[in-house]
Amino acid sequence: MDYVYGPGRNHLFVPGPVNIPESVLRAMNRNNEDYRSPAVPAMTKTLLEDVKKIFKTTTGTPFLIPTTGTGAWESALTNTLSPGDRVISFLIGQFSLLWIDQQQRLGFNVDVIESEWGQGANLDIMASKLAADTQHSIKAICIVHNETATGVTNNLAKVRRILDDYRHPALLLVDGVSSICALDFRMDEWGVDVALTGSQKALSLPTGIGMVCASPKALEASKTAKSYRVFFDWKDYLKFYKMGTYWPYTPSIQLLYGLREALDLIFEEGLDNVIARHTRLATATRLAVEAWGLKNCTQKEEWFSDTVTAVLVPSYIDSSEIVRRAWKRYNLSLGLGLNKVAGKVFRIGHLGNLNELQLLGCLSGVEMVLKDVGYPVKLGSGVGAAAAYLQNSTPLIQSRI
Amino acid sequence: MDYVYGPGRNHLFVPGPVNIPESVLRAMNRNNEDYRSPAVPAMTKTLLEDVKKIFKTTTGTPFLIPTTGTGAWESALTNTLSPGDRVISFLIGQFSLLWIDQQQRLGFNVDVIESEWGQGANLDIMASKLAADTQHSIKAICIVHNETATGVTNNLAKVRRILDDYRHPALLLVDGVSSICALDFRMDEWGVDVALTGSQKALSLPTGIGMVCASPKALEASKTAKSYRVFFDWKDYLKFYKMGTYWPYTPSIQLLYGLREALDLIFEEGLDNVIARHTRLATATRLAVEAWGLKNCTQKEEWFSDTVTAVLVPSYIDSSEIVRRAWKRYNLSLGLGLNKVAGKVFRIGHLGNLNELQLLGCLSGVEMVLKDVGYPVKLGSGVGAAAAYLQNSTPLIQSRI
Amino acid sequence: MDYVYGPGRNHLFVPGPVNIPESVLRAMNRNNEDYRSPAVPAMTKTLLEDVKKIFKTTTGTPFLIPTTGTGAWESALTNTLSPGDRVISFLIGQFSLLWIDQQQRLGFNVDVIESEWGQGANLDIMASKLAADTQHSIKAICIVHNETATGVTNNLAKVRRILDDYRHPALLLVDGVSSICALDFRMDEWGVDVALTGSQKALSLPTGIGMVCASPKALEASKTAKSYRVFFDWKDYLKFYKMGTYWPYTPSIQLLYGLREALDLIFEEGLDNVIARHTRLATATRLAVEAWGLKNCTQKEEWFSDTVTAVLVPSYIDSSEIVRRAWKRYNLSLGLGLNKVAGKVFRIGHLGNLNELQLLGCLSGVEMVLKDVGYPVKLGSGVGAAAAYLQNSTPLIQSRI
Amino acid sequence: MDYVYGPGRNHLFVPGPVNIPESVLRAMNRNNEDYRSPAVPAMTKTLLEDVKKIFKTTTGTPFLIPTTGTGAWESALTNTLSPGDRVISFLIGQFSLLWIDQQQRLGFNVDVIESEWGQGANLDIMASKLAADTQHSIKAICIVHNETATGVTNNLAKVRRILDDYRHPALLLVDGVSSICALDFRMDEWGVDVALTGSQKALSLPTGIGMVCASPKALEASKTAKSYRVFFDWKDYLKFYKMGTYWPYTPSIQLLYGLREALDLIFEEGLDNVIARHTRLATATRLAVEAWGLKNCTQKEEWFSDTVTAVLVPSYIDSSEIVRRAWKRYNLSLGLGLNKVAGKVFRIGHLGNLNELQLLGCLSGVEMVLKDVGYPVKLGSGVGAAAAYLQNSTPLIQSRI
Repeated sequence: MDYVYGPGRNHLFVPGPVNIPESVLRAMNRNNEDYRSPAVPAMTKTLLEDVKKIFKTTTGTPFLIPTTGTGAWESALTNTLSPGDRVISFLIGQFSLLWIDQQQRLGFNVDVIESEWGQGANLDIMASKLAADTQHSIKAICIVHNETATGVTNNLAKVRRILDDYRHPALLLVDGVSSICALDFRMDEWGVDVALTGSQKALSLPTGIGMVCASPKALEASKTAKSYRVFFDWKDYLKFYKMGTYWPYTPSIQLLYGLREALDLIFEEGLDNVIARHTRLATATRLAVEAWGLKNCTQKEEWFSDTVTAVLVPSYIDSSEIVRRAWKRYNLSLGLGLNKVAGKVFRIGHLGNLNELQLLGCLSGVEMVLKDVGYPVKLGSGVGAAAAYLQNSTPLIQSRI
Repeated sequence: MDYVYGPGRNHLFVPGPVNIPESVLRAMNRNNEDYRSPAVPAMTKTLLEDVKKIFKTTTGTPFLIPTTGTGAWESALTNTLSPGDRVISFLIGQFSLLWIDQQQRLGFNVDVIESEWGQGANLDIMASKLAADTQHSIKAICIVHNETATGVTNNLAKVRRILDDYRHPALLLVDGVSSICALDFRMDEWGVDVALTGSQKALSLPTGIGMVCASPKALEASKTAKSYRVFFDWKDYLKFYKMGTYWPYTPSIQLLYGLREALDLIFEEGLDNVIARHTRLATATRLAVEAWGLKNCTQKEEWFSDTVTAVLVPSYIDSSEIVRRAWKRYNLSLGLGLNKVAGKVFRIGHLGNLNELQLLGCLSGVEMVLKDVGYPVKLGSGVGAAAAYLQNSTPLIQSRI
Repeated sequence: MDYVYGPGRNHLFVPGPVNIPESVLRAMNRNNEDYRSPAVPAMTKTLLEDVKKIFKTTTGTPFLIPTTGTGAWESALTNTLSPGDRVISFLIGQFSLLWIDQQQRLGFNVDVIESEWGQGANLDIMASKLAADTQHSIKAICIVHNETATGVTNNLAKVRRILDDYRHPALLLVDGVSSICALDFRMDEWGVDVALTGSQKALSLPTGIGMVCASPKALEASKTAKSYRVFFDWKDYLKFYKMGTYWPYTPSIQLLYGLREALDLIFEEGLDNVIARHTRLATATRLAVEAWGLKNCTQKEEWFSDTVTAVLVPSYIDSSEIVRRAWKRYNLSLGLGLNKVAGKVFRIGHLGNLNELQLLGCLSGVEMVLKDVGYPVKLGSGVGAAAAYLQNSTPLIQSRI
Repeated sequence: MDYVYGPGRNHLFVPGPVNIPESVLRAMNRNNEDYRSPAVPAMTKTLLEDVKKIFKTTTGTPFLIPTTGTGAWESALTNTLSPGDRVISFLIGQFSLLWIDQQQRLGFNVDVIESEWGQGANLDIMASKLAADTQHSIKAICIVHNETATGVTNNLAKVRRILDDYRHPALLLVDGVSSICALDFRMDEWGVDVALTGSQKALSLPTGIGMVCASPKALEASKTAKSYRVFFDWKDYLKFYKMGTYWPYTPSIQLLYGLREALDLIFEEGLDNVIARHTRLATATRLAVEAWGLKNCTQKEEWFSDTVTAVLVPSYIDSSEIVRRAWKRYNLSLGLGLNKVAGKVFRIGHLGNLNELQLLGCLSGVEMVLKDVGYPVKLGSGVGAAAAYLQNSTPLIQSRI
């Protein structure tokens, strides 16, 4: 029995960790194995090749580090930078804040560009800083592709364009934790130097793999970066890649098999179809929010996130109460508002291996909770608005045609 | 990967087999064991005791036969009757029809009382037959508690009352396949002589255990019943019960552990709460059907089933197309109309380990499919009507208060 | 935690149910599905085709009945015979005894040919009975391919030869429960009319599928056989085969996926390699028994079973104590002696998905238990003898060369 | 199917990752959950309390970091030390070598005390260094409790005694990766300041939790330690401990439930019984090695390891060939010789959830492989010697008495 049993399935709509497909659970349901036998390296080889596809890179080098997104951040930074290095970083929500905190604690000189929470990264200020930096003292731009706390997606193509406009050599380090495998992410096309995500996000696995992908320029930078690092050091991985044994230390056998299946599912559906599905479900969610008469925390459409929607509640409601009640009454897990937006927003995560009816079940649950806490929602209004869109836009399931 | 992969979870709303709780899947995820070791009998003993609770019997003797509902039917009949015996049986839908077919093929003299599909058993005719049967040639009344094909629940208390009124000694054999553990079923109070169900129904297990519970009177009858039987013979079970080894042949180890967990979940929630949850979800479903402007196949409220709702579609729609499309486009599994109501009804199974948001997701899916096939439904109308009811009636989850 | 927890793995060496491969457990670790969707019939179709291969038949028709071996027996008998029919049956151990008991209780006129337990079927007596039966009153020969209680394998090719010699039209019904998929079994070549096995034996699945395969002659016989039957009736299966939906009632979804994987494993290894592995492990076991100075219950080499070895213990030892102690001290599950040989033999099952080191672990356990109960065994003697053979005869694992 | 399928179970005898009990696999077979709901913190609280028991500490503070042993090392070092700090470290095998490499790369001034591989830490040299260090320039002693590469166990009680003798305030940092939960480890009694292990070792889980336990003195040191750290920083954990939410970033839900079950199994068996079992199996292994006429890589009995035995092979044999062949022919996974002892030793891991017959199966496999590669072993000799010991010393399984 579960720790706090309730009948039926848990409706998991936090923006991570997300729902794991049954076939991935199956793939992971296995005993440990000797990772030095020929079998594990042979499988790892296929994983490293295939992981590149989800980053949309052919020139990048992936690392599957037994860690979380926080560790992946640390790996991106310490392999490419030296203490004291100046980096530009955007503060637009709780997760960019935490990354900035890490950058500072690791000894970098962080030039923070702050936006109101609910807005995207201020690229104009970045542009002016780059323009002024004729000495190239800025060593890296650190940016989240998608801020999970506010549901804001930044325009990475534009970041690259600005860097190119100023012919600035700064590395482009991207947190793709709540984007890669869900939003359209193009490592090579956008000249991203380090991109990273975590297994428990759009890949729909358990927590435990921090996926980091480094461009040739990032690998080059790692040769001279002076930050202390061992566990997160790419050098050890590269050494074992060369030997064909791949692992400097013990990986999770279960997660490797899980990743194999997760990638197979993504390729079976088609990465672009996966991304389109995220857009579809996010659009439906936003239509529901609108129908409820509530506001998206994200202030402009250009920043709307297709993986998480942060919903602003009227001031007379405590959004934490919505989250609590959803869990206590409807077995529905929603995301809390964090830090500056605590009590003000709740979040619907709509990323990973998810389909239309799961989302509609969630949305009907949100409606009931809204009513529970005193918000005068018309039951069925949001679900109806979402369904109207989905009924028009959902394709037949490929394998069943 | 699955045979016909679609992203996200399958929404399983056929009236069986039904959704298996994760903790039951976990309990069954195990190697075989020697069923002659002391461990299996020790666990079996607890199962047999606890199974009686879901039949609401203290005097009954349960048999956990490695078979399906069809086999459970056969066990009920062959252990209590002899070829040529006269039995009364009610034809009210596809499953009662199949049971009657079995009764005839097993050599009984079946006195069929037919109702229009969508109506309950005609107890008046039964009463008059009993009245006429002063010789007690009628050896058994065979009745489904819930006809899965039409969503009709029969009034077993009334059956018992009539039998008592006429002081008729006929055995009362009840198919509780789509009722026990979901509807209020009272074996002892209603004087049911044999009750049966299958593991894949409200118990929310895989198919594989035909559960049969026999009253002392039924056990007595089995001593003289002349129907040939071996696999289904209660005698062999009783012999092994006495020896304390319990199994005349190899049971499924996995299902025994699964049953242990399934029963634990039911007792944790409380059997009466489980039944109330079924009533709640069924009421919500019927409100949705009404909101869509569609008719319940069940003609009177007294027969409304709390485990399955058969929905009549307008004559210009083929209900099979609804089922096909639900599966092909929304990964939603609905029940087909069978035999006389093929093409005319589709069925929503709302039994087993299920909660409010799962049902609402299903209902929103049904709305979209209805629109897909040309029925002018207002999207959100059914879900809204159901939610209005559920938001008022759903209790907090006990373990989370 | 398990009911009676002990550290490490259980060493399962009863002759069924047997060890399930991890990948089969994985395949079965899944929710229920609508068995009327297109997915399940599509998979079933492949199963029925592939199951024929393990029976070595191209003309047979397989039935995957949700039952045990006992039910499979009943299906074989009731579909081909009518009450009162004369059948020849061989009593050579507990399982043939149980089958005979079933045959008698189902109303057949059983002509029993008894052998001492430890001997094979007396085919000379059969021959003389056939010779005398010029009227062809004998409708069927019922024989176990392998008697699980004594570890005796009968010579089916010879049975066929004798039938042919006398041009006798009796059906040949074979219990292949502890043989098919492990011993060399040739349905078509040996003119077997009905062959059957259970999923929990050499197929290495959980209990729950009784596999019955019928020759064209058996199918023909089923059209006129008068035994009452519904659940076990082939006719219902054939009807659904024709419709392409395959299932007259709900199958276990989990077992179907498990069977798919089990068959895939067998074909990956190669059925003949699987059989050779059984011969290898059985030979090793017999060498160990010899080294211990103990006798095989099977009296002649021609009857030696490659799936189970029944070991005779000296009269001053109670073999039940060996089984009890193996389980209590070494987490080793051995088979009890049954009925006539209770207390006199213990059994080592060496069938199913098993390899050399598993067997050697078991044999070393048996040695320790023998010492525990006072038999003067030289520890290491049996294992050494077995290993000497295995070290010479075990091939490299195909996939790892 | 597995990547490189072989029939039967894999015999996993590398010294990590080790065999996972079935009930732990079951516990982990689950979907993700919101780690910010009340359920996960409630369970985490019990884990943190119970983890202290396996470190035998009441005053320590445990951290369950989503990382491997290598990350746990890094956490131990960077939280307690500052770059440039002098530490004493013992080079006695591949894993102590890797830890020293890490210490150096993290900027510490490592005073290496080297021993021949196969010997334990030279504590006399440590004593003299401490004696000379009146200024207390030595900030920490770093020592592996058990060197996994050579099967050498160091005497930690003696290390503490020497530190106490010199009243030296250096921190005592202990790698307990292949010891904790298997060898007798006493954090409080031995004044260990940081102890660590990985989930995939004696706890018998998948890789993914680096368990670090800090004494009050170590926590105090962490307040002033200047090593850069974020992911591995105890401060963030302590902050969330105080808030009662426990996790600074996303843990693996599956591993938490797995750890809960793994601890339950250990407490069910009794930690001291678990340790006694390791001693028993290790003794049996050493007796087998002796019977084969081979030498233990560990030069003195005082250093014998109860979790891994490194076996020296004659110079005319390449030990890698033994490992390769064991896997290719017998589905047996043994540990390679590493670095200085590559080709010279192979290793048998006998730690984690393992029992007597599993080990004996392994030992018989080793015998066959030895013969395969040309070593003149008497088959059965090692198994017999091990069994003779085990048959005398193995207790009855508690739950089955």
